[in-house]
Amino acid sequence: MVISTEKRSDTAGLSPGTLVYIGKKRSDRVKITVIDYDKSHVLRKELKDPKECFSFRDKPTTTWINIDGIHRVDIIETIGKHFRLHPLVLEDLLNTGQRSKMEDFDHYLFIMLKMLYIAPEHGEIKTEQVSIILGKNFVISFQEEEGFDVFNPIRERVKNPQGRHRRSGTDYLAYTLIDAIVDNYFAVLEHLGERIEMLEDELVAKPTQHTFHKVHELKRQLIHIRKAVWPLREVVNSLEHNDTNLIKEKTRVYLRDVYDHVVQAIDSIETFRETISGMLDIYLSSTNLRLQQIIKVLTIITVIFMPLNLIASIYGMNFEHMPELSWAYGYPMVIVSMAVLSLTMLAFFWKKRWIWEK
Amino acid sequence: MVISTEKRSDTAGLSPGTLVYIGKKRSDRVKITVIDYDKSHVLRKELKDPKECFSFRDKPTTTWINIDGIHRVDIIETIGKHFRLHPLVLEDLLNTGQRSKMEDFDHYLFIMLKMLYIAPEHGEIKTEQVSIILGKNFVISFQEEEGFDVFNPIRERVKNPQGRHRRSGTDYLAYTLIDAIVDNYFAVLEHLGERIEMLEDELVAKPTQHTFHKVHELKRQLIHIRKAVWPLREVVNSLEHNDTNLIKEKTRVYLRDVYDHVVQAIDSIETFRETISGMLDIYLSSTNLRLQQIIKVLTIITVIFMPLNLIASIYGMNFEHMPELSWAYGYPMVIVSMAVLSLTMLAFFWKKRWIWEK
Amino acid sequence: MVISTEKRSDTAGLSPGTLVYIGKKRSDRVKITVIDYDKSHVLRKELKDPKECFSFRDKPTTTWINIDGIHRVDIIETIGKHFRLHPLVLEDLLNTGQRSKMEDFDHYLFIMLKMLYIAPEHGEIKTEQVSIILGKNFVISFQEEEGFDVFNPIRERVKNPQGRHRRSGTDYLAYTLIDAIVDNYFAVLEHLGERIEMLEDELVAKPTQHTFHKVHELKRQLIHIRKAVWPLREVVNSLEHNDTNLIKEKTRVYLRDVYDHVVQAIDSIETFRETISGMLDIYLSSTNLRLQQIIKVLTIITVIFMPLNLIASIYGMNFEHMPELSWAYGYPMVIVSMAVLSLTMLAFFWKKRWIWEK
Amino acid sequence: MVISTEKRSDTAGLSPGTLVYIGKKRSDRVKITVIDYDKSHVLRKELKDPKECFSFRDKPTTTWINIDGIHRVDIIETIGKHFRLHPLVLEDLLNTGQRSKMEDFDHYLFIMLKMLYIAPEHGEIKTEQVSIILGKNFVISFQEEEGFDVFNPIRERVKNPQGRHRRSGTDYLAYTLIDAIVDNYFAVLEHLGERIEMLEDELVAKPTQHTFHKVHELKRQLIHIRKAVWPLREVVNSLEHNDTNLIKEKTRVYLRDVYDHVVQAIDSIETFRETISGMLDIYLSSTNLRLQQIIKVLTIITVIFMPLNLIASIYGMNFEHMPELSWAYGYPMVIVSMAVLSLTMLAFFWKKRWIWEK
Amino acid sequence: MVISTEKRSDTAGLSPGTLVYIGKKRSDRVKITVIDYDKSHVLRKELKDPKECFSFRDKPTTTWINIDGIHRVDIIETIGKHFRLHPLVLEDLLNTGQRSKMEDFDHYLFIMLKMLYIAPEHGEIKTEQVSIILGKNFVISFQEEEGFDVFNPIRERVKNPQGRHRRSGTDYLAYTLIDAIVDNYFAVLEHLGERIEMLEDELVAKPTQHTFHKVHELKRQLIHIRKAVWPLREVVNSLEHNDTNLIKEKTRVYLRDVYDHVVQAIDSIETFRETISGMLDIYLSSTNLRLQQIIKVLTIITVIFMPLNLIASIYGMNFEHMPELSWAYGYPMVIVSMAVLSLTMLAFFWKKRWIWEK
Repeated sequence: MVISTEKRSDTAGLSPGTLVYIGKKRSDRVKITVIDYDKSHVLRKELKDPKECFSFRDKPTTTWINIDGIHRVDIIETIGKHFRLHPLVLEDLLNTGQRSKMEDFDHYLFIMLKMLYIAPEHGEIKTEQVSIILGKNFVISFQEEEGFDVFNPIRERVKNPQGRHRRSGTDYLAYTLIDAIVDNYFAVLEHLGERIEMLEDELVAKPTQHTFHKVHELKRQLIHIRKAVWPLREVVNSLEHNDTNLIKEKTRVYLRDVYDHVVQAIDSIETFRETISGMLDIYLSSTNLRLQQIIKVLTIITVIFMPLNLIASIYGMNFEHMPELSWAYGYPMVIVSMAVLSLTMLAFFWKKRWIWEK
Repeated sequence: MVISTEKRSDTAGLSPGTLVYIGKKRSDRVKITVIDYDKSHVLRKELKDPKECFSFRDKPTTTWINIDGIHRVDIIETIGKHFRLHPLVLEDLLNTGQRSKMEDFDHYLFIMLKMLYIAPEHGEIKTEQVSIILGKNFVISFQEEEGFDVFNPIRERVKNPQGRHRRSGTDYLAYTLIDAIVDNYFAVLEHLGERIEMLEDELVAKPTQHTFHKVHELKRQLIHIRKAVWPLREVVNSLEHNDTNLIKEKTRVYLRDVYDHVVQAIDSIETFRETISGMLDIYLSSTNLRLQQIIKVLTIITVIFMPLNLIASIYGMNFEHMPELSWAYGYPMVIVSMAVLSLTMLAFFWKKRWIWEK
Repeated sequence: MVISTEKRSDTAGLSPGTLVYIGKKRSDRVKITVIDYDKSHVLRKELKDPKECFSFRDKPTTTWINIDGIHRVDIIETIGKHFRLHPLVLEDLLNTGQRSKMEDFDHYLFIMLKMLYIAPEHGEIKTEQVSIILGKNFVISFQEEEGFDVFNPIRERVKNPQGRHRRSGTDYLAYTLIDAIVDNYFAVLEHLGERIEMLEDELVAKPTQHTFHKVHELKRQLIHIRKAVWPLREVVNSLEHNDTNLIKEKTRVYLRDVYDHVVQAIDSIETFRETISGMLDIYLSSTNLRLQQIIKVLTIITVIFMPLNLIASIYGMNFEHMPELSWAYGYPMVIVSMAVLSLTMLAFFWKKRWIWEK
Repeated sequence: MVISTEKRSDTAGLSPGTLVYIGKKRSDRVKITVIDYDKSHVLRKELKDPKECFSFRDKPTTTWINIDGIHRVDIIETIGKHFRLHPLVLEDLLNTGQRSKMEDFDHYLFIMLKMLYIAPEHGEIKTEQVSIILGKNFVISFQEEEGFDVFNPIRERVKNPQGRHRRSGTDYLAYTLIDAIVDNYFAVLEHLGERIEMLEDELVAKPTQHTFHKVHELKRQLIHIRKAVWPLREVVNSLEHNDTNLIKEKTRVYLRDVYDHVVQAIDSIETFRETISGMLDIYLSSTNLRLQQIIKVLTIITVIFMPLNLIASIYGMNFEHMPELSWAYGYPMVIVSMAVLSLTMLAFFWKKRWIWEK
Repeated sequence: MVISTEKRSDTAGLSPGTLVYIGKKRSDRVKITVIDYDKSHVLRKELKDPKECFSFRDKPTTTWINIDGIHRVDIIETIGKHFRLHPLVLEDLLNTGQRSKMEDFDHYLFIMLKMLYIAPEHGEIKTEQVSIILGKNFVISFQEEEGFDVFNPIRERVKNPQGRHRRSGTDYLAYTLIDAIVDNYFAVLEHLGERIEMLEDELVAKPTQHTFHKVHELKRQLIHIRKAVWPLREVVNSLEHNDTNLIKEKTRVYLRDVYDHVVQAIDSIETFRETISGMLDIYLSSTNLRLQQIIKVLTIITVIFMPLNLIASIYGMNFEHMPELSWAYGYPMVIVSMAVLSLTMLAFFWKKRWIWEK
């Protein structure tokens, strides 16, 4: 999760609608799969050539075209032209630093959102941009790479002849895609919640500078997750209330449900933010306490030894007339009085709760 | 009161409307009670089988079905089907990590809110999700467990033949349920208020790291209470201004009243938040003061003893020609001048208010 | 000014509209006074029995019934029934922990607001709830106790046959009541302003922990005043723009004026808040400075005496071959060099501005 | 620039519309000047008696009456009555603690705003309240005192027969008055900007407690300027969009321009606020650094001298059998080893960058 | 990037619409270039005299007049008069301290925005004000100086006979100008992002006061960038939704796209702000840690050497009866016990993690 804005600047100066892929090249392959279904049949195949999907555009059945990998600008352009997508849409979906948004182009809706997931290798949170084109009888989804995919359960559900998918159209399909992405936010948030709890325990038990850095790292990740999730609220809301006839009344209830989930996710993020800011306070306070305890030790030692040292120095003076020096019990008396003095002071600190008190 | 978002992620990938209970299983039993009444009669019984309540759906009398325990998905499903509840409603009420909300499904309203109460055992604040279905002649309420219940006084009032319940319909009943839950917020807030006052006294009198942690714990609880109460404002407001005919004009005045109470609760929560943030400031300031006092002691001791020690060391030098050493009153003179010097310094610190000043 | 929410919880579970007094019993008596006037006459009397005021309800003259003391639920109920007040209105005005609000019940308006005043005994700021019922030809005002009253000047003005009251109706009377309460806010705010200025001087001159606590106490009071004043903005605004015919067009200009005053009060409160938060910063900074100066003293003493002590210790060593020891001027040379060394260091600290610099 | 709310409380209890001057009496004189003009003529004279201006009320020419000094309530009342101003308007313009506002009284508009200027004597920022009455053929402006006046250039421009004033009516005149006041805000803001830059340099070069207090004083002034400027945004906006026919369409473009300037001023104020809050952070950080450097000196001295002292003390012990004491080169060896030891430590601190590092 | 508000105050008192250049004179020359094109032809030339462009006003072809350098008031006035621009527009575009805005004057739109770029010499971020006049068949753009220009790629694209420019009108041209400016924001933001990342690394590795000042400098720049970018959101939004017929429906899609980019830029700025504020926290925390480590060293040294010193001092006392002094192994025993004591303490500190722990 980097700060940089994905090198958007490289396209500065290009004509609007000029197609350039902005983002890291995540994989080499581009994988195009088509699932075509209606009440009575399901067809699923992987395409070699993007042109194979052209015939589905005007078929009355529901067609879902999923494209993994958007770095091959030529493929995106071929598909975009055939499905009559606006050049700006193509430009946007190639630019992985975009903000989530929804745009209505009459004969199709363009929805862009962020998929969050935890990279299996090192537990880091990653973002992937997903663009969805919702047409009358097709849905096209673009993902940055093949690796992580939350859409598999949907592929299974489509196969079920009694499932709601088979009875519903493209709007329901698009909803399930969005829903799958939003549902996965909770997995990420739970993961974060667990790390927060672990760090909280660490903070109370044994806070170090390292803990502090981990809390800060968490805070940074949260800033980025927030940036990804917040705009979605508006997106889903405008999807629900849009007056397009691409979305049927029946499906709007489901969109309302997704909206509630997004708001719930935002709520959790805000709660996490407050919790983390409280954790930083705790760290600061425990640092202060630590400093105080160190200085206490310094003070106690100084207070005890300085007077003892003075006594010893006094009897180290070379005056000729110091009667104590010739007393038989002078030395032991001094030693004993030193012991008494230091014990008195320890008792004083004990009473003032400077010692052993947390 | 845990941070985790109730393991919602386990349902990721399931078809929308698939019923899964998300939450801790709080008790084993599911208790279903029915209260059916109109002007002239009251019937109250506990059901063994959820199907026993089916007959009440179309009876013109007012029926209140209360279900304690929502972990038995089959029971919820049976009831949901018979009362024609939308699958998403059932999914939502089984998911205990939901946000408070209100949804209008024409022939019924779905209201979800959070009950707050203080666990009698250890004084901790707990949240329980309550869902209310308001139909034309039935109200169904779902609670997570049987243990804590704020609805008992309502059960009593329904028995009263002169009571307003008997003259009013389901909308008034639903209002009293919501009102009972909101009223209980104040018990929780008073409890918190008392703890805040106790901690404030502790902070002024004898602040320790432990006090700090208690203040922080309070702050965390407040974050969660706030998360539970805030959305209710919107819920009650939209209930009041909804144009459904399930809520009569006469009842809207009462909803306005609940709205005012919710706003009042939110006001108190915000005031608490500000108070707690002030308490953390006080703690920090008293920590600083403490440190300052410790360092004062260190400085005073150092300032007094270092010069005395120097004097003693000087007269401990082994020069052959040090006239003072052979004076008869050299030793007492040095001791006296040391005493004078240290008293002068103490007086100086006294005057500069370093000693005994708070 | 306590934090607790006035033990509202005691009414949890009671039927809505059940009348219970929530608040401290401030006095024993309940005092009911009636002022009845029109262009040609004024009548003013104190009532023994609440029923005496019944006849005024339908009289075309303007009647102002003022009730000091609301702990006698029976009296409130008697009056409420006769003047056809909604049970919830009565419940609200008995509950002294309410938020300021305005409600329109067609034949009357219910206005609730907070009176602020400085307790004459100990200069503390107190809140008192005032409820106003504005009917067609009556105004009823409820106050918590007889003690403090800002309405006396109004009573005098009503007597004046040329005064605007005598030419205007109940809406103008209600306006003057609200205006009197709002005007008194400024007295309280000026009082606070003076205390803030005093504390600011104290902070710059001689800040102690005690000053800090006083600033904090001020902050807390401000939180509560803010809670009392903020909602009034909305109340007066909705009064002004309400489409009731109980308020004549001519009076709305005056309400606009009250609105401006409330906004002005809120402005001052916000300015005070910012000022106080700046004061806490100043305190913190002066604490830091203090600590720094203490540590400076410690450091200067240590830096000066440690080398001197080392010199003395060196010449206290018992080596047989230390030529300096037998020099005739060894001792004075050492003393002089010690003096030179310490003066050099003092000069160094002087130059580095460690001494005498603020 | 004082905090106090101008002793508004003295009017508490007075009948609304009772005229009392609230504010400091800034000068003794009241100066009334009239400028009357149309396309063909200009008349300018200073009035002795407020009644002299009565004749201008109904003259079709454009008349600007400017009154410096509002403490003479009788004069204000005389003018107010003749020009049929609402009593509340007179009350408001006598009260110098008001918030900027705009009110529409059909046959005239009442505009109140704050003039900001830098007192030439001591460079302090001062506020003066200016009230403007915009009638069909007259504009009346009220200022608190004669001293400072931003209207002189307007008086000059009116004389110019080709100027836009002569072709335009009262609305354009009122606009130029407001514009002159708003333009002067920028002079004040630039003055503040320069002081901020100076303080920033001081902060980086040599921050003292005095700098800190100056930054804080700046912050306080900014709080007050903000309070004066913010409400103006709303005032000018409602002037522009008001549907009164006192303001011609052509003039609204100019009001839009003033609006932009007010927003620009607010922008600058907000930027200043952020800058100042950053400066307080820098001060705090440099204080911390200073403390750290002082403690470094303390530590270095302690670390170097303590071991040396120990060595000297060891050879000051009086054991009979200490072979080193009788060595011929014992003493120089000890001295040399002390020097080596201290140089080693200095090198260590040098390497750890404790010395000479900023 | 200076704080000062560009000396706007110098125009205070001037008649509105008086043309004065406010800003630094950036270059001597004024360069006027004209590009005139339609589907079939392109003409590009640099003008010597501003009057040469007059003929283009009413030509049906699309004309783009670009003026670099606005300090020559006479030129601006000549052009402004011929193209019938409102005097306030001319005043605004000469004032380089303006806020971004959009104004609709029926026959033309006036758009003002801020260009951001990184000065190639020293990597500082600079602002330049760009004003765009969009008429029916002309676009006039005013820039402060010739030096930096993001419009070159547009000049190239216009030459392309197949390009969209040649098929579109002035609205598309104006859009591409705005788009070019907004696109360049991302270059600036990426530059900032890289500096933030570098500083973050520096903060973790080796934070100094210098790093702190660099972070602060960054924060200040961000405040100014934010001030430049925020208002643009509103500007582009009102451009998109304006009901002028100067902007064709087809072009609005493109404006929506610019709007998205502006929001994305604002998002990044806010994220940067949060990141920087976190960095200041890290700096503070590492400063605290440093202080703690210094004090640890002080404490360890004191704790070890004080007891040793006391022992040495005790055996330096001159009592006649101190049996240890005459023991044959007294001296080595003392030395050994000193070593044991100091090692014990070191072990203690090691165990308490005071040594070598980060």
